[in-house]
Amino acid sequence: MPHRFRQLVRRKDFKGPTAGQCGEYAQANLVVIPSAYAEDFLRFCIRNPKACPLLGVGERGQWNVPSLGHDLDLRTDVPGYNVYRDGVLSEQPADILSLWNDDLVAFAIGCSFSFEQMLAHEKIPLRHVDEGVNVPMFRTNIANAPAGPFGGQLVVSMRPMSGAHAIRAVQVTSRFPSVHGAPVHLGSPRAIGIEDLSRPDYGDAVTIREDEVPVFWACGVTPQSALEAARLPFAIAHRPGHMLVTDIPNASLAVL
Amino acid sequence: MPHRFRQLVRRKDFKGPTAGQCGEYAQANLVVIPSAYAEDFLRFCIRNPKACPLLGVGERGQWNVPSLGHDLDLRTDVPGYNVYRDGVLSEQPADILSLWNDDLVAFAIGCSFSFEQMLAHEKIPLRHVDEGVNVPMFRTNIANAPAGPFGGQLVVSMRPMSGAHAIRAVQVTSRFPSVHGAPVHLGSPRAIGIEDLSRPDYGDAVTIREDEVPVFWACGVTPQSALEAARLPFAIAHRPGHMLVTDIPNASLAVL
Repeated sequence: MPHRFRQLVRRKDFKGPTAGQCGEYAQANLVVIPSAYAEDFLRFCIRNPKACPLLGVGERGQWNVPSLGHDLDLRTDVPGYNVYRDGVLSEQPADILSLWNDDLVAFAIGCSFSFEQMLAHEKIPLRHVDEGVNVPMFRTNIANAPAGPFGGQLVVSMRPMSGAHAIRAVQVTSRFPSVHGAPVHLGSPRAIGIEDLSRPDYGDAVTIREDEVPVFWACGVTPQSALEAARLPFAIAHRPGHMLVTDIPNASLAVL
Repeated sequence: MPHRFRQLVRRKDFKGPTAGQCGEYAQANLVVIPSAYAEDFLRFCIRNPKACPLLGVGERGQWNVPSLGHDLDLRTDVPGYNVYRDGVLSEQPADILSLWNDDLVAFAIGCSFSFEQMLAHEKIPLRHVDEGVNVPMFRTNIANAPAGPFGGQLVVSMRPMSGAHAIRAVQVTSRFPSVHGAPVHLGSPRAIGIEDLSRPDYGDAVTIREDEVPVFWACGVTPQSALEAARLPFAIAHRPGHMLVTDIPNASLAVL
């Protein structure tokens, strides 16, 4: 089913956000950078594993990464790309066939869609899903561990929950470190430098009910933010929400 | 070491609260009731496992329960007892040798001292320990699952923590279901019927800092509260804080 979905994307028959597509399989954040920066970026991911859990890394010039999926082409199988030049978003092509070259290295980073599926299995309501919007994301005052030109601040996604659901969500997501794992914070937004939950830096605001606690997970936007701050001459990422659908079953990512 | 400590208690050379004694070993809440009520009380424990996790159950008339400890005597090895008659606390003897009879059945129920040791290992501060007082405990509006005459409301203990510590505490205590396990609630006290955190129903109030979230665990006072509400003609329990020190290493209680 992920293979058939990627074929649709490759033929440009699917161009939208991938939330809810092939729900049993892991989706991935994509980062593609020149090989000169690859070792530092790997180091950055290893030092910031909650924000940048690596599902796969390609060889230099490799646009198919077999561990991610059968007959996969990173240049065509993502429904939208962001191209950065000198740290600035310059274009949003539907494929990167003409931009690919033999010096590029690709990284696939775990995505919260995987653990959201596990929360849904447990009947834990997700407010942004119920309200039909993007999950709210915020820049925090928590510094990433730097590596080479990569640094910046941790970005988190926020999901409001009852206390009992927050506890169960900690248990469920702890089993999945390769898709961000347990939350990094809950409760006071100001404790991590967030001034106003109604004004997210990315995504959309959601309703927070009186008896709910905001729960914050490390977010896959963090590497894209580090990429912008690093001002690399050239870099490619997926367009937010438009993820790479892999052949990796979410269930197989549980560490216990 | 627990065996030597119980010998001290048996000789009346130790009469105080047991917090911090033989810290590597599980301490237990004690409930002793006439055999006519034993089956219903067992059913009550099974139906309310977070408040009443059973570490051991004696046979009818059995005052040594070998699985709890070597050369153990439940009639003398607890540093203080509460005796209830018709549901009312009637006396607090130093031993129950003269009160024991062949019709009594003893229950040992897991205690939060075990998981507090695991939290201390993780350098998670415990406010009531730092402030040198008893942990604050509250009656909630969460009904226990009833069995025979036993029912009443869940009692919880509360520990204020930073968000990151609360998340780690959920992970750590989830491994120990036989000593209350994961919290039952965090965040809004009113969501579980607690009006004022500065006025606990048992134990002492503690400071809650601005950026902290209150975290609530099911409490071993719940069965004692159910015992009072059931108005049994005769029942014995430990005096709160004066626990049975067992030979069971806390570490052995981890389910993973």
